[in-house]
Amino acid sequence: MLTPAQTDRVEVVLVSPRNPLNIGAAARAMANFGFHRLSIVAPFAVNWCEAKSAVGAPDLLREAKVFSTLAEAVAHCTFVLGTGSLDKRKPAQNILGLPEAAERVRIELAVEGQPHDAPETRLALLFGSEKHGLTADDLSWCHAIVVIDTAAEQPSMNLGQAVAVCLYEISRAPAPVASLLANGQPSSAKPDSDQLDRLALLIEETMDRVNYTTRGIRSANGEALRVLLRRLMPNEADLRRMMGLFRRILWQLSRRSEKI
Amino acid sequence: MLTPAQTDRVEVVLVSPRNPLNIGAAARAMANFGFHRLSIVAPFAVNWCEAKSAVGAPDLLREAKVFSTLAEAVAHCTFVLGTGSLDKRKPAQNILGLPEAAERVRIELAVEGQPHDAPETRLALLFGSEKHGLTADDLSWCHAIVVIDTAAEQPSMNLGQAVAVCLYEISRAPAPVASLLANGQPSSAKPDSDQLDRLALLIEETMDRVNYTTRGIRSANGEALRVLLRRLMPNEADLRRMMGLFRRILWQLSRRSEKI
Repeated sequence: MLTPAQTDRVEVVLVSPRNPLNIGAAARAMANFGFHRLSIVAPFAVNWCEAKSAVGAPDLLREAKVFSTLAEAVAHCTFVLGTGSLDKRKPAQNILGLPEAAERVRIELAVEGQPHDAPETRLALLFGSEKHGLTADDLSWCHAIVVIDTAAEQPSMNLGQAVAVCLYEISRAPAPVASLLANGQPSSAKPDSDQLDRLALLIEETMDRVNYTTRGIRSANGEALRVLLRRLMPNEADLRRMMGLFRRILWQLSRRSEKI
Repeated sequence: MLTPAQTDRVEVVLVSPRNPLNIGAAARAMANFGFHRLSIVAPFAVNWCEAKSAVGAPDLLREAKVFSTLAEAVAHCTFVLGTGSLDKRKPAQNILGLPEAAERVRIELAVEGQPHDAPETRLALLFGSEKHGLTADDLSWCHAIVVIDTAAEQPSMNLGQAVAVCLYEISRAPAPVASLLANGQPSSAKPDSDQLDRLALLIEETMDRVNYTTRGIRSANGEALRVLLRRLMPNEADLRRMMGLFRRILWQLSRRSEKI
């Protein structure tokens, strides 16, 4: 099991959950494995009230935070993991098996020397609605996508069960593999989602100024650019440098325009 | 994942389940992980009919065997594993953590040379009713008891979630070492070192043109920039897009200079 200080840094985010029983089941699984930070994005109001007021609902369910958008829910998170099956799409993000993803989460949580209330240490685990899972837009906020290895005939898991399996795997005792740290080295401080978006805005502004358009980087709502930045996972120092460079480029471009 | 011949030798046994939704959830988890032999012992008749006739019930639920006693249900099994939390009792059997129990099951299933319909090769995994779990009498049919490591404040898992977590663990790849090494590889092709250096040159040229200097990105011989690009691990498509953007920026900067 992880320590309370570690589970305190993990947020479970349910995006538009429909069935109150599933919301309750997700909360129960969290309680089983010692997690307590639950966020709900754009729930169906009636169902959410029903779930919250159910007999035996754990405290963490009543204390869940409700957000109207996913962007707000993960704004302060430095590592966002989406969950889903891959039968219907080919996402641009890194795809991790659950054991790898869980190992990665444990490594992030094992980094010492950060007070556990520091925003730069928060991780989010996203689950989509029962109907269609996480959408492409939801996934664009994710640094990586976790896939549970299921049978081809019935790949899609029940929401509450998917939460249980993911949290079980994350909270399991780490595998005694010494070489692990060599690969997934926790690097220096990670930018949160909000910081990444500020860089994305600067890059978009630069693209506008130089009339650079490409379906590759920029598509509707900057989704592709958002995905790219999360996949590259720059640390905070990288981010500051990139922002510095793009600010400088924009400044030079405007200076030259003035002179004309 | 286990082979179909292996999962065919594993029976999931629900003892006196009450809630039709939990029965359905247990069946769905079995389908998710490729198991299909379900036995029900002494179900509450009405609830069992409701579960079996639910919309979307997997075939394995309709084909489940019903027994009036646990003794009959496990009569042909060579290894019977009970599940439960230990908060209320001290059983006489061996107690295994779920990872150890799953390893044990996989070893049993890996034994070659037995036709998979031979009764002596069958394993059963028992789950008790939602109300009180497996009784001392139920446990007396078990070779060992599996305990899922849960939080002391909320040790008892929902039936469907417990089934999901157990089957997930049993069907997981046995050796975590190999899969761990494939740590988060992005799907598309990787650029070679030469391609990365060409992007680095473009960025350096841009930095020169806008008089942007920072020890952070650019140090002697562009080393820091080289390291940064390798750490971010862009794929080939990312690289092309970034090169396109920086070429465009350079072109715009030179165009504006000419006009001056």
